[in-house]
Amino acid sequence: MPVKLIDQTPSAYAYPLLIKHLLHKPLRCTPNQEIVYRDLYRFTYAEMFQRVHKAANMLKSLGVAEGSTVGVMDWDSHRYLELFYAVPMMGAILHTVNIRLSPEQILFTINHAEDDVLLVHTDFLPIVEAIKDQFQTVKKIVVLRDGPETPATKVPLDGEYEDLLARASDDYTFPDFDENAKATTFYTTGTTGLPKGVYFSHRQLVLHTLAVLAAAGSYHTAATFRSNDVYMPLTPMFHVHAWGIPYVAGQLGVKQVYPGRYDPAVILKLLVSEKVTFSHCVPTILHMILSSPAAKSVDLTGWKVIIGGSALTKGLCKAAMDRGVDLITGYGMSETCPVLTLAQPQPHMMSWSLDEQIAVRCRTGQPIPLVDLQVVTPDGVPLPHDGKSTGEVVVRSPWLTQGYYKDPERAEELWDGGWLHTGDVGFIDERGYLQITDRIKDVIKTGGEWISTLILEDILMQHPGVSEAAAIGVPDEKWGERPMVLVVLKDEFKGKVSQEDIRQHFMQFVEEGTITKWAVPDKIAFVEALPKTSVGKLDKKVMRQQYR
Amino acid sequence: MPVKLIDQTPSAYAYPLLIKHLLHKPLRCTPNQEIVYRDLYRFTYAEMFQRVHKAANMLKSLGVAEGSTVGVMDWDSHRYLELFYAVPMMGAILHTVNIRLSPEQILFTINHAEDDVLLVHTDFLPIVEAIKDQFQTVKKIVVLRDGPETPATKVPLDGEYEDLLARASDDYTFPDFDENAKATTFYTTGTTGLPKGVYFSHRQLVLHTLAVLAAAGSYHTAATFRSNDVYMPLTPMFHVHAWGIPYVAGQLGVKQVYPGRYDPAVILKLLVSEKVTFSHCVPTILHMILSSPAAKSVDLTGWKVIIGGSALTKGLCKAAMDRGVDLITGYGMSETCPVLTLAQPQPHMMSWSLDEQIAVRCRTGQPIPLVDLQVVTPDGVPLPHDGKSTGEVVVRSPWLTQGYYKDPERAEELWDGGWLHTGDVGFIDERGYLQITDRIKDVIKTGGEWISTLILEDILMQHPGVSEAAAIGVPDEKWGERPMVLVVLKDEFKGKVSQEDIRQHFMQFVEEGTITKWAVPDKIAFVEALPKTSVGKLDKKVMRQQYR
Repeated sequence: MPVKLIDQTPSAYAYPLLIKHLLHKPLRCTPNQEIVYRDLYRFTYAEMFQRVHKAANMLKSLGVAEGSTVGVMDWDSHRYLELFYAVPMMGAILHTVNIRLSPEQILFTINHAEDDVLLVHTDFLPIVEAIKDQFQTVKKIVVLRDGPETPATKVPLDGEYEDLLARASDDYTFPDFDENAKATTFYTTGTTGLPKGVYFSHRQLVLHTLAVLAAAGSYHTAATFRSNDVYMPLTPMFHVHAWGIPYVAGQLGVKQVYPGRYDPAVILKLLVSEKVTFSHCVPTILHMILSSPAAKSVDLTGWKVIIGGSALTKGLCKAAMDRGVDLITGYGMSETCPVLTLAQPQPHMMSWSLDEQIAVRCRTGQPIPLVDLQVVTPDGVPLPHDGKSTGEVVVRSPWLTQGYYKDPERAEELWDGGWLHTGDVGFIDERGYLQITDRIKDVIKTGGEWISTLILEDILMQHPGVSEAAAIGVPDEKWGERPMVLVVLKDEFKGKVSQEDIRQHFMQFVEEGTITKWAVPDKIAFVEALPKTSVGKLDKKVMRQQYR
Repeated sequence: MPVKLIDQTPSAYAYPLLIKHLLHKPLRCTPNQEIVYRDLYRFTYAEMFQRVHKAANMLKSLGVAEGSTVGVMDWDSHRYLELFYAVPMMGAILHTVNIRLSPEQILFTINHAEDDVLLVHTDFLPIVEAIKDQFQTVKKIVVLRDGPETPATKVPLDGEYEDLLARASDDYTFPDFDENAKATTFYTTGTTGLPKGVYFSHRQLVLHTLAVLAAAGSYHTAATFRSNDVYMPLTPMFHVHAWGIPYVAGQLGVKQVYPGRYDPAVILKLLVSEKVTFSHCVPTILHMILSSPAAKSVDLTGWKVIIGGSALTKGLCKAAMDRGVDLITGYGMSETCPVLTLAQPQPHMMSWSLDEQIAVRCRTGQPIPLVDLQVVTPDGVPLPHDGKSTGEVVVRSPWLTQGYYKDPERAEELWDGGWLHTGDVGFIDERGYLQITDRIKDVIKTGGEWISTLILEDILMQHPGVSEAAAIGVPDEKWGERPMVLVVLKDEFKGKVSQEDIRQHFMQFVEEGTITKWAVPDKIAFVEALPKTSVGKLDKKVMRQQYR
């Protein structure tokens, strides 16, 4: 006997999970709440809702219909927020153009996503001017501007956003359609190859919003996002929809502050003047703000921040907490919408010492509702949650990209055995906290065991004579790979530290149980300098080639 | 051009919204958290998860498969919680038998739902003994007991729950299936006719869980349900899955306390010994607890309670708040899974006076995420949210019952024009707070306007001479209906209050703007007593017949 299904024929009864349904709560409950764009614009939720309708009519007059794609090149703004709603609610697809890419890559993404209409901030007109002749699908271009005048440009413009909005009707009926309709797309870059387009449906964005809302709001103790907060994103809106948090902010009905281009002085000014209490950003931005001269005179006590994008070091975490910032780590990636985990301490941990709390807050976090997360062996066997068994992080949840747009080959590597493979390596502890330890391409695979290069490097850096260090895997006939380390000694230690000294240093950590004896490097090379990439990161690809 | 759909062919990628996915978070993050049943049982989440697997194997050995129905007759217990998960996770349907019905009605629901297996607490064996010979589909009966011995019974038993569980394997693979599979069913009663069976799918229960979690957890200020709470339901688990809150509690990873049969002494003892901080109940249960002699010596400060099921009076709200209880109202019904609104004050209201706060907390509440709620005219036209325009409450959300099982006629009345009609009448204010004022069958419809009988009665009760009062609509050729009131005077006022006095009393409220002059009753009758039902409620049906 099969399961009994309830009738799902499209009927009056059906209620698809559409982005438009995310507007019921903010509109009914907090119509007078504010949306602020720098010191330039200030609207109520009710006014924004009216503007969302006007934006839809404006886009319609530019030819946008169900299935169209609308590209946006803007800093974080009220306009972007309006388009987060208006474009998908029309049944069209919002392409949040990654403005950090090179002009050639931007051109590739606009053509690859098949943008029909492009909305461009004046700051990006020079880029568009350079690439416009190679556009294959763009039919209309609208300019977005902060000042009164559009600068001279050779880009053929079909109007200015505020001007077109002022002339548009606010009467627009957003239709019902299948919740699996594509809503957003954007491009992510690896170190090699062309940008890859990920995409998310209405259903996925609605479920992500609810789950993040539930997790960020209810599992309190630290950095909780609540209905009395004032929100300012510090992750760009073109990057995974600012982690989807603007949609969450709407559900909470909080004041939303959009800072435009990230300028520490502007950000700090808005933090103070708008009384911002909740943000999210990558470690670099937090560091930039904390170390900005203007920050010295600003009281950051109680500012709640979720950190993601790359690992939060204990040093930066402590520096922020010393300033009164209440911060935790989150984890996810462009392919995962993005939130998978949040590192909120559990209630009993709030009485722990600062150092113990920092250790938890810097962990990569616990899964949010509906996220099924495992670390697995190379054969896909789930490993125990014991705080040490290390494997690739794989995940299932209702909001993972199905693949890369028009790129089935690379999509195939993403999904395997029903799990999305993150390419990250880590372990899970008894309380479900994930700790990412490495990228899988950097990890050393030896005799079925995985060794984190980050941990080996961390151990080396604790030796008083070591200035810089890198760990890589080198081919080994018997074990597949074996660890090798490259060490740059401090000048005053050169010639005074032997390979045996380094090996003895590692043995201490074997005795302490930090690593197994299999992780102790076979080969130790003292070098003058380490190969680095153009942005100053260790270039392990070059090292691996060198010591193959 | 149609919207672009993402591929939804059942694939490794698909992630249906199934109840089993609600177990990821509690199991990974809080495996050592406790589940308590009175002073009889105490398990960890990890142990419960093992027992859920054993329960599935036990049910399988009794013939339960996908599409089967499992009826449960129990008080609130750890067993019920295990079955909340195990039965639907098998692809079977959990029928939470309404044990408050008469034996004849219970028999009707068991046959109508086509229960294959019945699990019965020893307290209900006498009822089952009386009706078992008329069972049409039940094949196996398992007894649930709190003591060591099963009392003598003529019911043919196929085993005892704990005993069968102890012998069952904990190796069970819960399958994936369509998220629209029926998961639960139960029966609701009106004042007339047979019980009506409502039913909910996996998708609906998962979405309800997320939305309630988000709303009850994130919109703080009052009665917030958080990860550091201790939870004890005081709405029976057979009644709309204890409002679905046990599933929410699991996501939060809180300690859960199940009190068995509702005995004020037991409840208060558990409140103290288990340090319960969060509950939900109908006003009657709150009143029973507050007025119980044992409550005098118990400190209720900080106990958070959500009240639903019927209106919370300001008097009871104040009595509870005077004892330190932090309470708000919720709104919903069996047909709506049930939660639609929660009456959390907004942040700025927390500085209001006690009386002003009570007014908000007793409102029927603001919609939770994804709930689209309106009050409409008899023609279905939405009314403004102005705090006074009164109409029928209609609703859309992803978790409304599709109809009544095998009862298409009565289901047709439920859904109209794409909205579920609640049969409640009320208004919505500028901040989205709904206020229920009446049941539609009791409301007076006069010249296209609706007059609340509850408001007329409330006004009458403010007259010093009135002991009891009722308002009804009587047929009127020109206006359809006109209001009439029946008044029982206090002994000392008999013969001293005239119809004109009562009319003048109403006119004060017209001047104050509480009611329009159309609402002032045409007919005022002084009577010795009011017709009442067997449970002591005003019997308006009889009154309407009497004064037709």
